[in-house]
Amino acid sequence: MTDDALPALVGPVEVVGAGLIGASVALVCRRLGLDVVLRDTSVEHLRTAHGLGAGRAATPDDRPQLVVVAVPPAAVAEAVVDALHRTDAVVTDVGSVKAAPLASVAARVGPGELARYVGSHPMAGSERSGPLAASAALFDGRPWAVTPHAAADPDAVGLVESLVLECGAAPIRMSPEEHDRAVARISHLPHLAAVLVAGRLAAAPAEHLALSGQGVRDVTRVAASDPGLWQQILEANASAVLDLLAEVRTDLDALMTAVAAPSAESGPVTGTGPDLVEILARGNAGTAAIPGKHGGPARPTRSVFVAVPDHPGELARLFGDAGEIGVNIEDVHIDHDPARPVGLTELVVDRGSADRLLAALESRGWTTHR
Amino acid sequence: MTDDALPALVGPVEVVGAGLIGASVALVCRRLGLDVVLRDTSVEHLRTAHGLGAGRAATPDDRPQLVVVAVPPAAVAEAVVDALHRTDAVVTDVGSVKAAPLASVAARVGPGELARYVGSHPMAGSERSGPLAASAALFDGRPWAVTPHAAADPDAVGLVESLVLECGAAPIRMSPEEHDRAVARISHLPHLAAVLVAGRLAAAPAEHLALSGQGVRDVTRVAASDPGLWQQILEANASAVLDLLAEVRTDLDALMTAVAAPSAESGPVTGTGPDLVEILARGNAGTAAIPGKHGGPARPTRSVFVAVPDHPGELARLFGDAGEIGVNIEDVHIDHDPARPVGLTELVVDRGSADRLLAALESRGWTTHR
Repeated sequence: MTDDALPALVGPVEVVGAGLIGASVALVCRRLGLDVVLRDTSVEHLRTAHGLGAGRAATPDDRPQLVVVAVPPAAVAEAVVDALHRTDAVVTDVGSVKAAPLASVAARVGPGELARYVGSHPMAGSERSGPLAASAALFDGRPWAVTPHAAADPDAVGLVESLVLECGAAPIRMSPEEHDRAVARISHLPHLAAVLVAGRLAAAPAEHLALSGQGVRDVTRVAASDPGLWQQILEANASAVLDLLAEVRTDLDALMTAVAAPSAESGPVTGTGPDLVEILARGNAGTAAIPGKHGGPARPTRSVFVAVPDHPGELARLFGDAGEIGVNIEDVHIDHDPARPVGLTELVVDRGSADRLLAALESRGWTTHR
Repeated sequence: MTDDALPALVGPVEVVGAGLIGASVALVCRRLGLDVVLRDTSVEHLRTAHGLGAGRAATPDDRPQLVVVAVPPAAVAEAVVDALHRTDAVVTDVGSVKAAPLASVAARVGPGELARYVGSHPMAGSERSGPLAASAALFDGRPWAVTPHAAADPDAVGLVESLVLECGAAPIRMSPEEHDRAVARISHLPHLAAVLVAGRLAAAPAEHLALSGQGVRDVTRVAASDPGLWQQILEANASAVLDLLAEVRTDLDALMTAVAAPSAESGPVTGTGPDLVEILARGNAGTAAIPGKHGGPARPTRSVFVAVPDHPGELARLFGDAGEIGVNIEDVHIDHDPARPVGLTELVVDRGSADRLLAALESRGWTTHR
């Protein structure tokens, strides 16, 4: 099916759950000029979303073309069933896990109803919550999994893909089971690894933590997310997550053996497991496997480091200079230095542009290094 | 001992190993006007470092005040012993692990020599290498552990702390054993967790990886580092690393039990381990324990999200506007969006400034959300 053949999203669109994701979808639809109906069990969320212009209250005569269920993971199946019973609309949800809610829905609706349900999952917004954080720009350029079951109506699938495209996201079609295995690997496992590392920091002496660099901050950042939400996600995807955790446990045992083993210099290696360099190199391969910006292969980049005084306007001046020099900044990291009011800012640029940027920044008086 | 009482660094300074760290120390000393002698087994490194103005070749008459050993971890002890035998200087090293090299040195030198050795470890530069990447600004504001043994000469300790301060870093004094336990926790464990997660990505289907967001990129970034270097670091700190990996293994088992357990709603929990929410909340506590910028407690911040077209000058325009608005940017993240030429840029600012920044950016035509 080509994009041209996708059914047009004409509304009305009903959004169930006016949190970050739901209200953001509603804002996109309002921007398209569509009639948007909002439902939420929280009067406060509903009032806030109305106030943002995200849509109107439901009435008994509403006949939505599409219902978007955007409620917490544990409440998805019931809200989808309710929407299928209440309306003739295509129904999608935006939950983080797909197979378990589908099974629950399939057990409680007829085949005609089930054909109208197509699950989906935008890869956006996990660390913030509530309608106040909503934005029509939230999905810009993000992957958005669309996960039809075998008996889904092709037109229903097309309508959900239309929504994804209207949201500025990139639809990626896969089965619910495939999706759950994918997010277990690229979202749930990294999350749990961050939790385990952060868990070992909680009771550490302050002077140990004083040595913290950017590495530990990056590794643990996502562990700051809402435990209640993540409990629901992990319980709904327990099987795929446990499979991966079991693999990691095996890898951890091999790692412990490799760290404990005498290195080749000290004597012959008697075990049959991978050696430490082999395990570390596998990590290299894994980071290289993550797709680059804009979905293409990762482009070779280089980092340019610049010392930037920590007060308003200095970063502006740096980016102003970089802009005038005409080099595109692919990524930025600012080191949280623990002792002095000077930040080391890392500019990630195309490898071919790094020398030119360095020379030009130095000629403008910046202290830089590679 | 106050800073005023520290012995003055007057040189000559001998730097053994003209890689990233060694050449950067040499550049700092040259900037101070000191006589700097460079040694390296690599003729190419030596030539490059000379070319950068980092110092001169050794002569038989050199009598350095301080020798800085900046060689790969496995070569540290031998280079320190050699420097103690060859010279009357204070000798420090900048290796990532402290107790094992010290034990090796102590077994091979006399008490008078040992008193002149004080290990240290700047928390800088782990992902880049070679003298071409060197910079006198490399240590600006970084923590730099100074790890004297019990029999170290106080003046030798003071001279090493003088070097650290001249490098613009923050000296943090602790015992070698304490240091090794600290870096096991805040550097080696996060590194290995990143390696384990990245290792599970290497063979993943491309369509699974297509769903990758910023989280998995952050968690795995450090796993791209040099395996050979990390092998040496981990072997030298095997005991402290294994202790922590064993703790993580216990935590992983508890996590697996918690993920597999029925939630409270489905029936009474019969196990005695922590439940999933408890484990996830411990991760929250750990991220909060990492000290904030400039060593103070973490200040409350808020994120402002701005859609930025992906071509030169747009980030400049954004930072220019933020600078004119007068809000200090604490941190920046640029989302690597996989599908479209628009990046979502996250500006982390003081909580009290976020609303003002948002309103002012919107009035200048930026698409933002919180």
